[in-house]
Amino acid sequence: MFKQGNFAGVLNAEFEGGFFGPIIQGVRDIMLPFQWEALNDRVPGGERSGCIHNFEVAAGLKDGQHYGFVFQDSDLAKWLEAVAYQLQLAPDAQLEKLADGVIQLIQKAQMNDGYLNTYYQLKDITKRYTNLRDDHELYTAGHMLEAAVAYYLATGKDAFLQVMQRMVAHIATHIGPEPGKLHGYPGHEEIELALCKLYDVTGDEQALRLAEYFIHQRGQTPNYFVEEQKKLGREYKPGGAYGYTYAQHHQPVLEQEALEGHSVRALYLLCGMADVALRTGDETLKDACRRLFDNVTQRRMYVTGGVGSSRHGEAFTFDFDLPGDTAYAETCASIALVFASRRMLEMETKGEFADTMERALYNTCLAGMSLDMKNFFYVNPLSVNPEASHKDDRKRHVLPVRPHWFGCACCPPNLARLLSSLALYALGSQGRWLNVHLYIQGRYEALVNDTKVAIEILTDYPKSGSIRLKLSAGDYGLRLHLPSWCKVYTFHLAGKDAAHEVKDGYLCLNGPFEDCELELQLDMPVERVYANALVSEEAGKVALQRGPIVYCLEEVDNGASLHQLLLPREAALTWAKNDKLPGGQEIKARGLRRQTESSLALYSTKPPEVVEAKLTFIPYYAWANRGENEMRVWMEEAKKKAACL
Amino acid sequence: MFKQGNFAGVLNAEFEGGFFGPIIQGVRDIMLPFQWEALNDRVPGGERSGCIHNFEVAAGLKDGQHYGFVFQDSDLAKWLEAVAYQLQLAPDAQLEKLADGVIQLIQKAQMNDGYLNTYYQLKDITKRYTNLRDDHELYTAGHMLEAAVAYYLATGKDAFLQVMQRMVAHIATHIGPEPGKLHGYPGHEEIELALCKLYDVTGDEQALRLAEYFIHQRGQTPNYFVEEQKKLGREYKPGGAYGYTYAQHHQPVLEQEALEGHSVRALYLLCGMADVALRTGDETLKDACRRLFDNVTQRRMYVTGGVGSSRHGEAFTFDFDLPGDTAYAETCASIALVFASRRMLEMETKGEFADTMERALYNTCLAGMSLDMKNFFYVNPLSVNPEASHKDDRKRHVLPVRPHWFGCACCPPNLARLLSSLALYALGSQGRWLNVHLYIQGRYEALVNDTKVAIEILTDYPKSGSIRLKLSAGDYGLRLHLPSWCKVYTFHLAGKDAAHEVKDGYLCLNGPFEDCELELQLDMPVERVYANALVSEEAGKVALQRGPIVYCLEEVDNGASLHQLLLPREAALTWAKNDKLPGGQEIKARGLRRQTESSLALYSTKPPEVVEAKLTFIPYYAWANRGENEMRVWMEEAKKKAACL
Repeated sequence: MFKQGNFAGVLNAEFEGGFFGPIIQGVRDIMLPFQWEALNDRVPGGERSGCIHNFEVAAGLKDGQHYGFVFQDSDLAKWLEAVAYQLQLAPDAQLEKLADGVIQLIQKAQMNDGYLNTYYQLKDITKRYTNLRDDHELYTAGHMLEAAVAYYLATGKDAFLQVMQRMVAHIATHIGPEPGKLHGYPGHEEIELALCKLYDVTGDEQALRLAEYFIHQRGQTPNYFVEEQKKLGREYKPGGAYGYTYAQHHQPVLEQEALEGHSVRALYLLCGMADVALRTGDETLKDACRRLFDNVTQRRMYVTGGVGSSRHGEAFTFDFDLPGDTAYAETCASIALVFASRRMLEMETKGEFADTMERALYNTCLAGMSLDMKNFFYVNPLSVNPEASHKDDRKRHVLPVRPHWFGCACCPPNLARLLSSLALYALGSQGRWLNVHLYIQGRYEALVNDTKVAIEILTDYPKSGSIRLKLSAGDYGLRLHLPSWCKVYTFHLAGKDAAHEVKDGYLCLNGPFEDCELELQLDMPVERVYANALVSEEAGKVALQRGPIVYCLEEVDNGASLHQLLLPREAALTWAKNDKLPGGQEIKARGLRRQTESSLALYSTKPPEVVEAKLTFIPYYAWANRGENEMRVWMEEAKKKAACL
Repeated sequence: MFKQGNFAGVLNAEFEGGFFGPIIQGVRDIMLPFQWEALNDRVPGGERSGCIHNFEVAAGLKDGQHYGFVFQDSDLAKWLEAVAYQLQLAPDAQLEKLADGVIQLIQKAQMNDGYLNTYYQLKDITKRYTNLRDDHELYTAGHMLEAAVAYYLATGKDAFLQVMQRMVAHIATHIGPEPGKLHGYPGHEEIELALCKLYDVTGDEQALRLAEYFIHQRGQTPNYFVEEQKKLGREYKPGGAYGYTYAQHHQPVLEQEALEGHSVRALYLLCGMADVALRTGDETLKDACRRLFDNVTQRRMYVTGGVGSSRHGEAFTFDFDLPGDTAYAETCASIALVFASRRMLEMETKGEFADTMERALYNTCLAGMSLDMKNFFYVNPLSVNPEASHKDDRKRHVLPVRPHWFGCACCPPNLARLLSSLALYALGSQGRWLNVHLYIQGRYEALVNDTKVAIEILTDYPKSGSIRLKLSAGDYGLRLHLPSWCKVYTFHLAGKDAAHEVKDGYLCLNGPFEDCELELQLDMPVERVYANALVSEEAGKVALQRGPIVYCLEEVDNGASLHQLLLPREAALTWAKNDKLPGGQEIKARGLRRQTESSLALYSTKPPEVVEAKLTFIPYYAWANRGENEMRVWMEEAKKKAACL
């Protein structure tokens, strides 16, 4: 049963062809085997992971010390979660055997009292739960728990789930509202949403209550992390990138007006808040979710769906601060934004949430990996000059090419689990409605009002906006997302016009349906996109988007000094397929280039001359697949009308 | 005798009125008394200096420990140097008594072996000369030496000079090319130029040879600092902002093609190279100076004469990398650029060097202090949003208001000594030529070809370009700088046209002269300035300049969100005096403003609307005198012609 958490409805899915078919297959064929090798320290030239090693030492199978970060276990967790989703999509005896084996190892590594975290087990067990702020103990437990739930749902095997239930029980014995327990919460949020998943499969009320406690205890007075750091004898200042906002404990969540601090933490917190609110029906908490989500998407999100403007604390900074060349925009943060958007859709079926999910997925998430799925970005800038990355410490985090594997390898396995579970993001059911949020080619089986519905989506979306949907008969309604970039669409049911309503960005058909075929044609012209005038970094600039895909210029197609290029407001924009280019498509335009003066005078009263220049844009997600070169999403616009008086 | 170092010619000067008269008086009346209090830890609320305290402890006058930085002594040195110049300008028995008193203290603090550095004397004398890279020992000695020379020239008293001659002898005993000595050089350059000043007043060849050794030993193999750090058991990586380039020892100076690393260090090195080359006649070293100076001024200098693009290492980054909002552009670096430019003028009387001196002096140097001369900037950005300074760690170094005094107080006393010695930068003689590089109102006495020449400059420059010069009779030539921003000028000698030649940016009159008056009228229109098209940060932007003064927009005059403002290329620019504004002048223009959408949509296919907006510009140096607010030098240009097709 694919269905998990509160992403109600999807029972099974199969992907073949279309845009994501090869990518989801690539996760199975390329990413998961590679990551398995990496987890086992068998990648030549790759940074050591130590992940499996740590479990083996903790299990007493070999001697050694803990290697790597305090959250090293979570890399294995994300791999196992991705494996679970892949097993759900298609059986694979060999992969399942590998997973079962490593789950046995995890069982052996677990302590008798139920505790499981190789870092503390191998470093100093007396220190567990003493530094919740920094040490990712609950975060790691959260990922392990998510993986255990997914594996249980995919295979019906509950060994891993039992391991993690014992760990949750251990946590609940030590942390909670009761006197004598630590009144703490995770420094890096994650376990809140995982506890809700556990609650969904076991009905364990204690899990939900613990999640709720973590959510609401955060930022209460006395401030737990302030006291905790005091006990550790460490100075802890409230301000700056590593102050109280870094881990979102500057205020109780219900009082927070903006998503602050470390962007992945902040968005996992938002997911946990939404999950708790959806299960408890807490309207105040739902309002808080909506407020924080609006803050991000209306004031703190790059046009690529990247979030986290600063590398200092990998964090949000302030409203409308969206510099492209020093962006952090971590791949994991955009994955978390997909997670959060999907949860908002569970609260309200509003197109804006699906729009954000699309923006993050098709741009920053996909940019997080190379087209061959072997190299990965952590940081996803909107403008790169390799010379700056090499010579300027402000931009050293902005890599111009994707490295193979990171010591801190959160992003690659996070991508693997997102891509393997896309069915949960594409579809969902609510009451008698089957919702289609993303147009991902595949065959799905969904549970709508206790009825099984089969739906097949046939499309090359996002290359085109042509979508065919085959539906099985039944008494249910269908809601199809109309992306906000789409201004014109046509729709036919069994080749004919059909009564429908458009509401909140969804095309709604009441049903009931016979076995039938629907055709949806979304007009997908190339559009010029402008940022709000409060965004200083993008003032006077324009970006190109077609469907959900944001485009960029690369040096290899357009020459060096991309900042010299301008796009006239009236220039025709021609889209075409082009298999020679990464991403298989291009936008061509006749643009302009400011010429470098031969004299090299640094300042002059004479403005640089402008000459014509041919521009070639490729999808942003496909950049950096042809070696090190400049890249740019926002470019200067040459204006003919308003701005020129 | 004012004349010092190789800035030949200026014997005496008096300043009254004009642009700099009140500023130079302000140094005496406000800055020096305040700084004296600060050095004595008597400024309520100010950061502790500890400077005098350290000398008192070293002198055995009180118990205590060293306080402050390893270079804390240099704050007193710069204060004493400024005092010396002020005593030269006008006698002041009280100030001289204060200086004599503190010089006695310095004498008492000096060790029997001649060594003088309170940090090592009070911390651990066995460690002296063990960490030349980091510990500013030679830098501090250099500043002390400069002060001693200046005080000797101003007062004829040689007590301080003798102290420093003993310290130089101590250094020369321990460091140098001979076997058994340390083959090192200063981590922070400064003493090279100071040794040349010592050579000029004493004729001590050993001082010049030591300076020459420091210059050429730098970056040789084996690399001294690499070996030194190895001995200290510290890891030292070549790359990054704190690698080998930080202290310019990545290559021998003759092989360096660009000015790299910590900008103040790099420019003090350039000064030392020029000073040595001027005295030894080393043409290869002169070529290296020219190459490095050209690199800075043609590729790495802000339009304000600020240098050092990154706070990481307070350093240069790479050619044409000039971001305004994350600039470091330390006040001291622009002071050093003035020093370097003046030395280049000694090599060749070329207007471009005087242009750079003007650009740095009238913009970044002056911006380093508030108009009341009580508050000081370290960092001089070209664009400031206070919210970013408060909330974004990338811009925390960019202060929106000048603080009172720094723990690391290099900039305020450095300004004091520059402003008190402006006569040396304004004038100079070369053979039979008297050169006027800067138009600073004052009465000067200069030595030209062994003849005393009196010259008085009367002008409100840079508020206008009207300059009167009164000359005493004599057989000498006169060269007057024609700033590169000036395209039209008129010139009269005793009310009539006079034969003259224009060469290398100087108007040259052969003389001989009777007692006479010259009138020079430099046309000073407001100009639009554009950066070279290789500068990505300023692409599509324009700055305003009138005479040597660069202008800026401030929020208090133009409203918030300055990035929303545009200046049409054809808009009339009206300059006027306005005593209500800081700097006493303004430029007005009819500009445009991109309007904030009321919907607050972050991205839209509709470009922001543009409406008319009145623009008010004030001199850049006068910004941040009306509380915390936004500021911006470069603004977007609305183009009517070329760029709009």
